[in-house]
Amino acid sequence: MKKNYLLTPGPTPLPPEVCEALSRPIIHHRTPQFQEILKEAHSGLQYVFQTKNEVFILASSGTGAMEAAVVNFLSADDTVITVEAGKFGERWTEICSAYRVNCEVIKVAWGKTVDPKDIAEKLRQNKKIKAVFTTLCETSTGVAEDIKSIGEIVKDTDAILVVDAISGLGAIELKTDEWHCDVVVSGSQKGLMLPPGLGFISVSAKAWKLQKDSKLPKYYFDLGEAKKAYDKTDTPWTPAIGLIIALNEAIRLIKKEGLEQVFSWHRKMAQATREAIKALGLELFSPQAYSDVVTAVKVPVGIDGEKLVKTMRDTYGVTIAGGQSEMKGKLFRIAHMGYIGEFDIITAIACLEKVLYEMGYKSFQLGAGVSAAQQVFAQK
Amino acid sequence: MKKNYLLTPGPTPLPPEVCEALSRPIIHHRTPQFQEILKEAHSGLQYVFQTKNEVFILASSGTGAMEAAVVNFLSADDTVITVEAGKFGERWTEICSAYRVNCEVIKVAWGKTVDPKDIAEKLRQNKKIKAVFTTLCETSTGVAEDIKSIGEIVKDTDAILVVDAISGLGAIELKTDEWHCDVVVSGSQKGLMLPPGLGFISVSAKAWKLQKDSKLPKYYFDLGEAKKAYDKTDTPWTPAIGLIIALNEAIRLIKKEGLEQVFSWHRKMAQATREAIKALGLELFSPQAYSDVVTAVKVPVGIDGEKLVKTMRDTYGVTIAGGQSEMKGKLFRIAHMGYIGEFDIITAIACLEKVLYEMGYKSFQLGAGVSAAQQVFAQK
Repeated sequence: MKKNYLLTPGPTPLPPEVCEALSRPIIHHRTPQFQEILKEAHSGLQYVFQTKNEVFILASSGTGAMEAAVVNFLSADDTVITVEAGKFGERWTEICSAYRVNCEVIKVAWGKTVDPKDIAEKLRQNKKIKAVFTTLCETSTGVAEDIKSIGEIVKDTDAILVVDAISGLGAIELKTDEWHCDVVVSGSQKGLMLPPGLGFISVSAKAWKLQKDSKLPKYYFDLGEAKKAYDKTDTPWTPAIGLIIALNEAIRLIKKEGLEQVFSWHRKMAQATREAIKALGLELFSPQAYSDVVTAVKVPVGIDGEKLVKTMRDTYGVTIAGGQSEMKGKLFRIAHMGYIGEFDIITAIACLEKVLYEMGYKSFQLGAGVSAAQQVFAQK
Repeated sequence: MKKNYLLTPGPTPLPPEVCEALSRPIIHHRTPQFQEILKEAHSGLQYVFQTKNEVFILASSGTGAMEAAVVNFLSADDTVITVEAGKFGERWTEICSAYRVNCEVIKVAWGKTVDPKDIAEKLRQNKKIKAVFTTLCETSTGVAEDIKSIGEIVKDTDAILVVDAISGLGAIELKTDEWHCDVVVSGSQKGLMLPPGLGFISVSAKAWKLQKDSKLPKYYFDLGEAKKAYDKTDTPWTPAIGLIIALNEAIRLIKKEGLEQVFSWHRKMAQATREAIKALGLELFSPQAYSDVVTAVKVPVGIDGEKLVKTMRDTYGVTIAGGQSEMKGKLFRIAHMGYIGEFDIITAIACLEKVLYEMGYKSFQLGAGVSAAQQVFAQK
């Protein structure tokens, strides 16, 4: 009879409207009925992406959409910039390398943000750079990049700006068109409050020009084919029908609230979480750079980080995330993204306090974190 | 208040157990809870595939799994055989060509099956052929290939046998191991009674040997990475969690019935459908070669095939499929696959009779098709 709470940076909890939509009888995809649904999904995604560009829906996880962002715009031996500030920045380099695209890697210490000037410098040195691959919110560190400033730099070059917005889209600000983001990829299981299984990718006019010259082999992720189908409100392959139906429900919820309101709610949840963490005497992984998507916290000295996460989840039903790759066991991460409310944050902090106490970390008064979060939520 | 009935060859109707599973709260994928689910899914798929090989679960539609079957085992300039007996056989050639793999195409007229001897002949002529790409059931024509005989031929060569079992797996017999099928791909939305969004692929020891030499670029569909994760009961990227949870429910239903019983039920439904069609004086597209998955019927002279399908669907709520590609408007197709029962077939035939009458095709007595189907269902 354990009650479960999910506060991970993907998947995020499903609103009841989404659960209900997922349980409906399935319909066929080559019908006027589904065309109506697809049309609504396309325009709903344009709203969330803040773009007039086409946003394609792929039956894949976010990594598939990232691959689409590489194979559709590049050729072997092209050179690109990849910004690596964590596990997901590194993924850009891995995908490009798998397709023999040369990467000029800008390595940033985990927990830090890239200096846009470093990107400008590299673009100045090598005029042949075709694309700049970045990450809106690096889930592994909880840090958001300054995509707006990067956009200002890249727009005046021949390169396209590619943004991995898998974590962050629909949770924090990303103005695809206004910030000159040529290709934005995302996934369903984060700010969009759906189960994983859908990838999204938007393509600007500047990116379509590159697409015409791209020679990398592709079939399933071929956006040329996707575009032909899109123009007829169709998909080239069988789409993930059920998830797209649920997507419309999720976007309807976001629209009802309004994007601005959704973003400010995420800001508030993030602030409450950070204040709670500080009130417990714990250290934020990155006090200067952070995002309103997920908060990464250093595991205090003497505490087993993996056991902390495991106990919260398996004993008390509160699932947060541990550290990834080089930060395994050294971090824990509390997500405040999507369908997560004030009292989910309170629950997570209360459970964290409880397990820290049990594990012998007691340099705070029980309730101190919860109280700090409550104070943030009480502010207008 | 129109009641809807789905008799298309993918997606197929969802059992209530699947709908319920899809509507559950989501759980995180890097947890012991999900590992249990994934373990059950892997062994359940081995049961349905009738194999001891690993069966990988991809977040993609069936076409993604087909692409995985190309990019993991081949290199550019390799030569393969593709059997084209319809739209989905042609897809093998398209994917191979996109990756610059040379295809020796065996073209078979739509509605016919390949003569296994033609495959043997080509393999004899060119010892460098790396793979033979076939289709278990060609959805566009309703015809099943003799995979068993093809397996007997291919097993004694250096080539691997690749089978597109997207339509057919879990509905008609396919003995992956016993028939020497090295790579079998499938999807979720057919015999497995799920929404689309999962691709499956099994890999034999012979295929793994080819995989080691494959130089085609890949990342998202890289089965080498998938294998490393599989061995730890994990996935390389975020899996389509909700669909995998529902997959276990679907396979539980299949297991409860038993594969043999499921296959004989499909045989019965197919026979009932064919007898009904004949009783209406209509012509089967392929009277000698057919499958127990979907029945393709020639649109009678003077009748608008597209309007027939449209009226059944939009006026009466019964969704069947029209013809694809070169058979557009010339065929209609009634699926009898997955969670479709006796009275769904009766409904489809009754609706077909009604609409044929309305459209002026009246060379049968109303009820003749239904009666013929009933007689088949009444047999022990």
